[in-house]
Amino acid sequence: MKFAACSSYEIAAQITKTTPVILPVGAVEAHGPHLPLETDNLLAERYADRIADKKNGLVLPVLPYGQVFSLQDFPGSLSLSNETMIQMIFEIGEGLYKQGVRLFVLISGHLGNMTALKEGARKLFLKHPDMRVLHIFYPNIQKLAADVREGKANHHTYIHACEIETSLMLYLASEHVEMEKAIDDPPILPLDADYTPMPWQNFTESAVLGEATLATAEKGEYLIETTLKTCLELIEIEQDKIRKAEEMA
Amino acid sequence: MKFAACSSYEIAAQITKTTPVILPVGAVEAHGPHLPLETDNLLAERYADRIADKKNGLVLPVLPYGQVFSLQDFPGSLSLSNETMIQMIFEIGEGLYKQGVRLFVLISGHLGNMTALKEGARKLFLKHPDMRVLHIFYPNIQKLAADVREGKANHHTYIHACEIETSLMLYLASEHVEMEKAIDDPPILPLDADYTPMPWQNFTESAVLGEATLATAEKGEYLIETTLKTCLELIEIEQDKIRKAEEMA
Amino acid sequence: MKFAACSSYEIAAQITKTTPVILPVGAVEAHGPHLPLETDNLLAERYADRIADKKNGLVLPVLPYGQVFSLQDFPGSLSLSNETMIQMIFEIGEGLYKQGVRLFVLISGHLGNMTALKEGARKLFLKHPDMRVLHIFYPNIQKLAADVREGKANHHTYIHACEIETSLMLYLASEHVEMEKAIDDPPILPLDADYTPMPWQNFTESAVLGEATLATAEKGEYLIETTLKTCLELIEIEQDKIRKAEEMA
Amino acid sequence: MKFAACSSYEIAAQITKTTPVILPVGAVEAHGPHLPLETDNLLAERYADRIADKKNGLVLPVLPYGQVFSLQDFPGSLSLSNETMIQMIFEIGEGLYKQGVRLFVLISGHLGNMTALKEGARKLFLKHPDMRVLHIFYPNIQKLAADVREGKANHHTYIHACEIETSLMLYLASEHVEMEKAIDDPPILPLDADYTPMPWQNFTESAVLGEATLATAEKGEYLIETTLKTCLELIEIEQDKIRKAEEMA
Amino acid sequence: MKFAACSSYEIAAQITKTTPVILPVGAVEAHGPHLPLETDNLLAERYADRIADKKNGLVLPVLPYGQVFSLQDFPGSLSLSNETMIQMIFEIGEGLYKQGVRLFVLISGHLGNMTALKEGARKLFLKHPDMRVLHIFYPNIQKLAADVREGKANHHTYIHACEIETSLMLYLASEHVEMEKAIDDPPILPLDADYTPMPWQNFTESAVLGEATLATAEKGEYLIETTLKTCLELIEIEQDKIRKAEEMA
Amino acid sequence: MKFAACSSYEIAAQITKTTPVILPVGAVEAHGPHLPLETDNLLAERYADRIADKKNGLVLPVLPYGQVFSLQDFPGSLSLSNETMIQMIFEIGEGLYKQGVRLFVLISGHLGNMTALKEGARKLFLKHPDMRVLHIFYPNIQKLAADVREGKANHHTYIHACEIETSLMLYLASEHVEMEKAIDDPPILPLDADYTPMPWQNFTESAVLGEATLATAEKGEYLIETTLKTCLELIEIEQDKIRKAEEMA
Repeated sequence: MKFAACSSYEIAAQITKTTPVILPVGAVEAHGPHLPLETDNLLAERYADRIADKKNGLVLPVLPYGQVFSLQDFPGSLSLSNETMIQMIFEIGEGLYKQGVRLFVLISGHLGNMTALKEGARKLFLKHPDMRVLHIFYPNIQKLAADVREGKANHHTYIHACEIETSLMLYLASEHVEMEKAIDDPPILPLDADYTPMPWQNFTESAVLGEATLATAEKGEYLIETTLKTCLELIEIEQDKIRKAEEMA
Repeated sequence: MKFAACSSYEIAAQITKTTPVILPVGAVEAHGPHLPLETDNLLAERYADRIADKKNGLVLPVLPYGQVFSLQDFPGSLSLSNETMIQMIFEIGEGLYKQGVRLFVLISGHLGNMTALKEGARKLFLKHPDMRVLHIFYPNIQKLAADVREGKANHHTYIHACEIETSLMLYLASEHVEMEKAIDDPPILPLDADYTPMPWQNFTESAVLGEATLATAEKGEYLIETTLKTCLELIEIEQDKIRKAEEMA
Repeated sequence: MKFAACSSYEIAAQITKTTPVILPVGAVEAHGPHLPLETDNLLAERYADRIADKKNGLVLPVLPYGQVFSLQDFPGSLSLSNETMIQMIFEIGEGLYKQGVRLFVLISGHLGNMTALKEGARKLFLKHPDMRVLHIFYPNIQKLAADVREGKANHHTYIHACEIETSLMLYLASEHVEMEKAIDDPPILPLDADYTPMPWQNFTESAVLGEATLATAEKGEYLIETTLKTCLELIEIEQDKIRKAEEMA
Repeated sequence: MKFAACSSYEIAAQITKTTPVILPVGAVEAHGPHLPLETDNLLAERYADRIADKKNGLVLPVLPYGQVFSLQDFPGSLSLSNETMIQMIFEIGEGLYKQGVRLFVLISGHLGNMTALKEGARKLFLKHPDMRVLHIFYPNIQKLAADVREGKANHHTYIHACEIETSLMLYLASEHVEMEKAIDDPPILPLDADYTPMPWQNFTESAVLGEATLATAEKGEYLIETTLKTCLELIEIEQDKIRKAEEMA
Repeated sequence: MKFAACSSYEIAAQITKTTPVILPVGAVEAHGPHLPLETDNLLAERYADRIADKKNGLVLPVLPYGQVFSLQDFPGSLSLSNETMIQMIFEIGEGLYKQGVRLFVLISGHLGNMTALKEGARKLFLKHPDMRVLHIFYPNIQKLAADVREGKANHHTYIHACEIETSLMLYLASEHVEMEKAIDDPPILPLDADYTPMPWQNFTESAVLGEATLATAEKGEYLIETTLKTCLELIEIEQDKIRKAEEMA
Repeated sequence: MKFAACSSYEIAAQITKTTPVILPVGAVEAHGPHLPLETDNLLAERYADRIADKKNGLVLPVLPYGQVFSLQDFPGSLSLSNETMIQMIFEIGEGLYKQGVRLFVLISGHLGNMTALKEGARKLFLKHPDMRVLHIFYPNIQKLAADVREGKANHHTYIHACEIETSLMLYLASEHVEMEKAIDDPPILPLDADYTPMPWQNFTESAVLGEATLATAEKGEYLIETTLKTCLELIEIEQDKIRKAEEMA
């Protein structure tokens, strides 16, 4: 259920202490010729919907701007600073806390957001230790990607506009993919890419970090469904903690 | 056209110095029993679309969280601080500037955002005097509302979940209005409401600041179409300035 | 009575929970050829004195620097940022709160300060909900000005160095007015003046936004005395709230 | 001449690159039974006037709130943080710089302001190395005080509401001194007073750090006139530097 | 060579554009019964010395306080915020830049610092794109650890006071290890440990995340020498870039 | 005893409410041809050790970067801003407070740090009035220096790389002094040096503010031992206060 599609009169009845309230966080960012700038917004939102469906969760409106350091110079990319993102997460969490929410689930469709999400979660934790905050980006995606990837081995952390991310899109938002424009453009990543600030124009012109043509909905299904299972488990763990804390109080 | 539905390859071709790039800014806020929490998001987004249609503009993803001081204690309301909003506007504007945008149009569906939008616009202006930034909330809506309002005279600045705002929704997003739940609940505004911090629970339980049952799509049409005309004029004025600045350079 | 003319030994006896402690806030800003840069300081201070006289208030030293965006490039104008002003208001309010003050009245002689005053008041309210803070700029002056204005209709919000403000000065501080230098220079305000950052050199050279020669002390008297009445009412309303809160505690 | 008593039309003609523009900075602070809370404002302002008279300077409106850590818990004291004061000094200096001022003289009547004034001056210097900023609190007053003090030796840095400061007031603002209320209350300063945060209620009830009854206008005259001489010398030194920089440019 | 052991007269001669200036960053943090709180300081400093020896580098004094969220509640742990650390890195980098340094190498002995180091590096990069900044924590240590680890498989990212880190200490600072106090205390890490703020007292009492008794100097040697090789390569890559940039300029 | 040389298991046993926990704060700063950049670090650390020896204190790792405005342009100098230093002091103090420390002793080897140390101490005091924080730079060194100085009278506050500071080094860290390189270079300090931002290159090339050749270990001994005595007294005073507060609670 969508949080903001409810009226003020309806929402109060929906919120219990174990209701997961889910904030999808995306980005406006270059994703090659075959994917839209809003790719991470679409993924985060639909992934959040899937979680909500299974756990009676409430999905907040997607935060559509993210931290985009690496691709900030590519056409169409827009970037927020970590400071601003941390503060947004914190202030939204504060508002939810006041309304009785105790399980706040941050779902990012963009790896670059994870520093801000983790820091925002910690800031909330330090102020409200009784609110559980999860910060999630496809749990274990790197390892699982190896199960399905046909292209050459990619970078150990970056998944971007490639066989893997395009597969996620084909499964969750295929109407926004133009597979006929998909290209293979695996970059040779310089050794220092992980150790020094390096905008990605240093090693790619397309922003496609792999072989997008190898993407399939089936690969996407495997990755989405497997990672979703972990998300549900995580939510159950936190719900248990909340219930126990309630009983103790 | 939607900015973020384009690919990185497509967007560059769309941006000229006079292209209006439009950011709808809304809020998640209590709007009585008949309107959803996302009312201001829906209005801002569709209003922005209307502008874009007429002026070959590009509409950015809606910023769905706003500054909600007055109703922050109502169920479902979420609020960002002015500081955070100003910084978001500034950082998005900075990103657009780097990509050649010179006409940045902020469209708010929520009056509470206007301080942040004006301050964000000034901050951008002081750094980039050659970028034109408009900050717009239904130009002259107060005066125009008097032309159509049947209910008793309302507050001189607040328009919220009432005959007027419900009419806007009936014209732009009627599928999100539950008119059978609409109520009349015009508050008696205390004299000091404009002069001291006063959360609205001091004078309303419903958050409906007027007679929502009197709303009609026709009233909404008048208000939207009349204010839109001013928006288009404003955009033309700024486009002229940009062109003149170009010629001088 | 002047707050700071008291000794530390005397002041404590003066402060009760319903004593209005009044902070005049002005600006150093261009006001045409016939008015001094300190016009808004003089007005704020004398207006505050008038309130204090009638309500046994204590007047703090005037904050003589204000937020001056629009005229910042005119000779003699000095501007503080909103951030700095908000913080000043907040810190002064904090100090007063510690000393038992519960009614803090902000009187501005300059419209540009009102964003900071409102935000500062909100910040104090969120921390100390039991302190009443009023933020006042001549209540309803725009509407009342229409009652006396002989010049052509002016802008709906700006009152600056014109028939109206000069009248205020002739009534409250005539020894600082050089009427022989007064000029008429009503600007044609561009349509976008309210919707985009626009320093006033875009439409005026003199900073006189109207017909200063039409000013009279009588017009000033009407505006000052009428708006003062509202101020006194506002103070009484807040004093009642404080008394009720006391009784409940 | 008073800066803000000029009109915008007049001020421009007054400002040359060597004109000292003088900002008096005071405080609202407990000063015992015989001196008003505004003592430091009166002293700073009149001292600044004396400088302006001799050097064709322009005196800005006094900043009447200062950093008051030590006496913040005494009735009537109000305190700004160093951060806020530094920012105020910086922003006022920025405004002056834009208008061609190159000699900005900060005159404090309150020792507690000196950290903020020095830091504000450094911040301006780092941005505008061609603007000279002086931060002055009665040059060498400690040493000179020993020449006239009849009371027992006081603390090596604190001068507050005592024989010395009361003498300054008797010379510069005698109409604000109630000598019949003056008392002698020299505190025994704990050894750690200079080495740990210690509000002054730890060692004084009156805030009179000495023998106020020994104050005379003659002592004040000696201290004011001698320190003023140094101020004039300092201004001349900076004026020389400005002239030389001009010649080189 | 130690940067700060040089005199001001000597240091200038040491700095060329390709000289690596190395900042070791550690932490004061609980490391079980057999390792001192300063473990990460010792490791960072000696690791930095090794790099300096091979590349004619200059080692700055170790920054001995780090970001310690996870163990902040353990006896002896001290934590700085990311904001403060980022600012420190940035300000030190700024100072080095002014003195002609173009290769700034951040060596952390503590994983928790890496967010701040990466952000600090990015902040420097955005201001000074011609300064190369490396942010290094034992390159590939996780993968390499698998080559030598005899204990049960540990967490995929945490290396703390365990077989691995104790081995590093036995190789680099054995005089600070009390192996007779070493214990085995591998925790069962909860599934949500990576996805929600979780201070480590939730799963360990000792802070030893593994089997410290299995540590040997040989394992340490392998890990240190192998990761050092990568460091040297990284430095050479950046030196090449600096040389090429010089040639182009 | 060194705080960070303890293990987490050992440290808890060491901390009582009256244990002085001592933070040496130094700087990396030009000190002429005969002293290393780390002079103030060496002095602060060894001075702290001496205090700890006599009062069962715990010495934290030295903060090796300080606020270096005056010499920031000299080779090898590195400077942190006051804001960053204040925040570091505050955060370290917060961590100590959580662990039961109630006596936090800041020992600076560098005068330029004292503003930050005093402000950091005040910030801690305002949050935790029951923690005693001392901020110490060789108590009364200026006066005592006059007892031993053979060179011409120096500046009344600056002690830098001269007869005095070199003597301190000869007594506490003689192995880091190269007396054969010591020079005499007493500057003529301009009258305005104390009243306007003035980097020291304005009056010295060597950074030696006096006659370093006159330094002796005996002079250093007198200054160190005499000032140390005051430190011990200060610590005892604070310990008494803590004990009394304990008894009252």
